[in-house]
Amino acid sequence: MVNKRILLISNSLVHGGGYLDHCADEIFDFLGKIKSVLFVPYALKNRDKYEQTAAERFKKMGIILSSIHRKKNPIKAVLLAESIFIGGGNTFRLLSELYKNKLLSSIRKRVNSGIPFIGSSAGSNVACPTIKTTNDMPIIQPQSFKALNLVPFQINPHYIDSDPKSKHMGETRETRIKEFLEENKTSVLGLREGSWLRVEGKNIKLKGTGGAKLFERQKDPKECSNSTNLNFLLK
Amino acid sequence: MVNKRILLISNSLVHGGGYLDHCADEIFDFLGKIKSVLFVPYALKNRDKYEQTAAERFKKMGIILSSIHRKKNPIKAVLLAESIFIGGGNTFRLLSELYKNKLLSSIRKRVNSGIPFIGSSAGSNVACPTIKTTNDMPIIQPQSFKALNLVPFQINPHYIDSDPKSKHMGETRETRIKEFLEENKTSVLGLREGSWLRVEGKNIKLKGTGGAKLFERQKDPKECSNSTNLNFLLK
Repeated sequence: MVNKRILLISNSLVHGGGYLDHCADEIFDFLGKIKSVLFVPYALKNRDKYEQTAAERFKKMGIILSSIHRKKNPIKAVLLAESIFIGGGNTFRLLSELYKNKLLSSIRKRVNSGIPFIGSSAGSNVACPTIKTTNDMPIIQPQSFKALNLVPFQINPHYIDSDPKSKHMGETRETRIKEFLEENKTSVLGLREGSWLRVEGKNIKLKGTGGAKLFERQKDPKECSNSTNLNFLLK
Repeated sequence: MVNKRILLISNSLVHGGGYLDHCADEIFDFLGKIKSVLFVPYALKNRDKYEQTAAERFKKMGIILSSIHRKKNPIKAVLLAESIFIGGGNTFRLLSELYKNKLLSSIRKRVNSGIPFIGSSAGSNVACPTIKTTNDMPIIQPQSFKALNLVPFQINPHYIDSDPKSKHMGETRETRIKEFLEENKTSVLGLREGSWLRVEGKNIKLKGTGGAKLFERQKDPKECSNSTNLNFLLK
């Protein structure tokens, strides 16, 4: 059986840093000998500009990035890709466009066959069973909330702890995730900014600087550090 | 033609206050001679507890509140209601349940016939053409994002200005609403906490203490105060 290889990043920008700077070493190491990436820019409106930003950053790593929105046949582009990177932005726009272009099953197939997959923010949301733990505004109705299901648990990217001094009465992130667990059974990993997950076969590693918080149904939330064994999430 | 009467509240709790305390005088005045309210608690999981909280608060105003979740025939309850109040919580759960109980057209019909409608937070979201400007997590997939369409514009409740000191890189509320306007033409009124809208026929009044911010496609956002004429939003 081929090992799946998946890198799921909380956020592409850390305060004060440039695009993907905080995780560029990890991306470089993760891709290894692979020097070309198929980019999925659907989460942002301006795809040309998004491609340019991403291509410049990958070029610094010696990797050629080309965007799927320029391909005549997007499904074929996925089938030929050596690796795939789905960028952040609005998760609903992204998933809607993946459905419109009928790309979900071909991306899933390729990742199951062992090509490296990288997701950042909204790109990490769509790697999960559903997009039900996104933070984004539902600006477009996708045909379904079901997503790529590359990992069997949910990620909440940009996870942020409650500010005890806040006077804002909108739901905290923790409250929102607990609402999710009132209606769904899948566990949720809140990935703080600066963190990412590297999944290889049956192994999952939390990396980066932010840590994570794990939410399971009818259990107290658990703080996770880079040494926490999270392999059970893949079962 | 009968005048529609609609009260749309940003939030049911203001920091440091009790449930609906900040807008109780307005609700009392808005309902006038009407002393019974049909409550829709679907946005929260625990409907019994939610009914109790709401009923106690309305009782202090001398108004009897009963919850639709106890009615054998919810559609009939809507058709007999003297007024309707939809409470806050998760907008996706709320809208999903309105669809399941086939209540959208009957609520719309009753409000068009002139009975007072009150919405708070998620309850204000569902009064709009769609729920595409909610802040909530999409924990349940409703059959459609289309909502009650009682007013022809979108509300973003709990509107919050960006904090220039924040190091969090998730989208600001303003960015999210601008993403909505990249994909949709309907204007969005960001109602800050402490604010509400009172709509009577062709008149709309911004009231309360928070003010609002108006977002229109391809225009700069506009700050709105309680003296701003917003009637054009109803056209």
